[in-house]
Amino acid sequence: MSNLLLKCMAILTMDEGEDLIKDGEIAIRDNRIYHVGSAGSTPADFVPDVVLERPRMVAMPGFVNCHTHAAMTLFRGYADDLPLMRWLKEKIWPLEAHLTPEHIYQGTLLSCAEMIKGGTTTFADMYDAMDMVARAVEETGLRAVLSRGMIGLGENGEKAMRESIAFIEQWHGGAGGRVTAMFGPHAPYTCPPEYIKRVVEQALRLQVGIHIHLAETKDEVNEIKEKYGCAPVVLMETTGLFEAPVLAAHCVHLEDREIEILARHRVGVAHNPQSNMKLASGIAPVTRLKKAGALVGLGTDGAASNNNLDMMEEMRAAALLQKVSTGDATALNAREALRMATADGAAAVGLGGLVGKIKPGLLADIILLDLHKPHLYPLHDLHAHIAYAALSSDVDTVIIDGRVVMEERRLLTMDENAVCAAAQEAAQSLIKAKEGK
Amino acid sequence: MSNLLLKCMAILTMDEGEDLIKDGEIAIRDNRIYHVGSAGSTPADFVPDVVLERPRMVAMPGFVNCHTHAAMTLFRGYADDLPLMRWLKEKIWPLEAHLTPEHIYQGTLLSCAEMIKGGTTTFADMYDAMDMVARAVEETGLRAVLSRGMIGLGENGEKAMRESIAFIEQWHGGAGGRVTAMFGPHAPYTCPPEYIKRVVEQALRLQVGIHIHLAETKDEVNEIKEKYGCAPVVLMETTGLFEAPVLAAHCVHLEDREIEILARHRVGVAHNPQSNMKLASGIAPVTRLKKAGALVGLGTDGAASNNNLDMMEEMRAAALLQKVSTGDATALNAREALRMATADGAAAVGLGGLVGKIKPGLLADIILLDLHKPHLYPLHDLHAHIAYAALSSDVDTVIIDGRVVMEERRLLTMDENAVCAAAQEAAQSLIKAKEGK
Repeated sequence: MSNLLLKCMAILTMDEGEDLIKDGEIAIRDNRIYHVGSAGSTPADFVPDVVLERPRMVAMPGFVNCHTHAAMTLFRGYADDLPLMRWLKEKIWPLEAHLTPEHIYQGTLLSCAEMIKGGTTTFADMYDAMDMVARAVEETGLRAVLSRGMIGLGENGEKAMRESIAFIEQWHGGAGGRVTAMFGPHAPYTCPPEYIKRVVEQALRLQVGIHIHLAETKDEVNEIKEKYGCAPVVLMETTGLFEAPVLAAHCVHLEDREIEILARHRVGVAHNPQSNMKLASGIAPVTRLKKAGALVGLGTDGAASNNNLDMMEEMRAAALLQKVSTGDATALNAREALRMATADGAAAVGLGGLVGKIKPGLLADIILLDLHKPHLYPLHDLHAHIAYAALSSDVDTVIIDGRVVMEERRLLTMDENAVCAAAQEAAQSLIKAKEGK
Repeated sequence: MSNLLLKCMAILTMDEGEDLIKDGEIAIRDNRIYHVGSAGSTPADFVPDVVLERPRMVAMPGFVNCHTHAAMTLFRGYADDLPLMRWLKEKIWPLEAHLTPEHIYQGTLLSCAEMIKGGTTTFADMYDAMDMVARAVEETGLRAVLSRGMIGLGENGEKAMRESIAFIEQWHGGAGGRVTAMFGPHAPYTCPPEYIKRVVEQALRLQVGIHIHLAETKDEVNEIKEKYGCAPVVLMETTGLFEAPVLAAHCVHLEDREIEILARHRVGVAHNPQSNMKLASGIAPVTRLKKAGALVGLGTDGAASNNNLDMMEEMRAAALLQKVSTGDATALNAREALRMATADGAAAVGLGGLVGKIKPGLLADIILLDLHKPHLYPLHDLHAHIAYAALSSDVDTVIIDGRVVMEERRLLTMDENAVCAAAQEAAQSLIKAKEGK
């Protein structure tokens, strides 16, 4: 770790109020932001070891992907254009049955490569063999909020509880503080209220958050209403779920009362527009949620239902989808979409005040976008450019926890060719295993 | 012109039936495709002057952008998150009032750079000073279907008619056959039926098509119904519009009867999902149109309402939007989305049988995508990869009319830096002119 000074054509701090600094510089001391301001404003006591002069680039906080299943990149393009239940039962679950920890490690490494190349610096993951996921995170330099997915039924439920506790005890605060652990009860329809109550008790005891899928499909809502006589978010409130910090993925089908509950408890909502569109799950009421004061971040979901981990795409899809679904072109404007992908997402995954903004004292998770591309000329409005025109491939440099992990699009913490080749091999071995070869 | 042989890991021909050739090669003689087949299948009488061996790349037809206003890249990010009429009246029209032919030339050059870099090989444009647009097309090597936008009222209407006829007489079949001209009556609400009838008469005389905006917003539908007592497409049928080949942009708000009319006349529908979302215009009934046998291609619309000219994004948005709006995850699958962006788009702009497929005898408009990227691993399904995971920046090489216009992402027909700088300057001079400086 050292003193790093970034100089660029502009900084989007994503802080409240005026968030654009033209011709700016950022001083980073070890893993934290020491100073942010216009050119030449860095205090003289800061002596940089390295200076990155990038006059054609804009700095902004790295993206926070609030909901994914990283290892599922192995299934990218394996099953598309299918209804959710056929997709799961005929394609995804039969493959997942053959997943080994090694597969999960290779799939996660591939995701880490893709995420860094697309400017994601933090991701919230729910999957299995989470120690392998944590290992990939530790090696590649990403920041992550990790939860072992729990199906709360029978012996599986007990195993999931034991493994979750062990994972949290081992990894919460791990990888030099870059890993945060959570519990990951899968969903209200796979975890009965009694099980959720036990999860909450453990989460409060261990002082960690809870990551859950909530109100993703109409079928889920119908099933919960039939079984328990109330909507999923209402049911979850009765279990005490929201006594812990909660990250709730999807939240597509919500009644007004549920929106009020999510806002009141400051639940972090992970909105996954492309996955919800691709699986025809529905359109989350993001505009209503935000109006009610709810905290909404953005996620890609797994690459099996997306099919990439591209936060630029997700941000754009979120904004455009709210406009067309509400019939209001002013809905979810460029700045709001950018905040969802950064500062609001950071708060949603429990890292508010730590990452998601470029501000002195915060951890240095910063990306540089190269604006010198035909699709980013001319420059009238930086927020609009990034929200509506930029590509994830415009990310040139990625800094996480003060460390440069990508420069000029070259990954510095992993061998990109080897990771891609190993993932291809892992996917093939998985398919062979499924086909019984 | 010469003999070019392409060898790649796969070819997506986009032809009917099986459209994937693994380990394939394409022989190009001058500007036409001479042979397509698996490795080593090219007839011995073909002696290549140049061989491009690209074992990690996939070849597919270049994208056909069925509806844009290329020069509007100058307004990219100038006005966002506004309702359509405020966007037009307060922002776009006041700027357009100061546009000179030189601005239009520079804006179009910028678009050509962006389009080639994103794999677009043909675009259908409607704007003003079309001789400047044609000049940019001629110089940069693109293929284009160009129409001078016509507001059919008063003296402006007469001027537009004269200029359109002059443009068509000069440019139809120009730039070595790469330019096709059309008439461009703007829309039913800006061109009264009598004017449309005169346009049709001239189009039939000159044997060219007609490019028009149709049924874009609810307001338009209400206005036409109030004025003429019928829906826009019905009104247009009574004018005889569909006696000529028609390219109709948007077609968002359609009654069943209108869908039947569009299908019966083989009207080319240009679907612009991102523009329709961003301006909150609505969701075009693409699934219903296709079921009725209508011909639907894809367009980006101008960069002022998109904000880029990225056909990968448009293809993805189209597929995801149909799935979520119909509640059917099987709607508009990957292959259909790819066809809309290529073969169906070519037919929609009147170039069916000439471009849009990789097939012997067709013009050689071909792009190569580099699949060696983390977000494109592992490879299970090529159609899904391109439709759901690839980025426009994955386009490595672009061939138009048999000529390599981009290689390894370097533009060969223009100076990218100069084009970007000139566009920035043009945009600034435009804003100064508007502000009366």
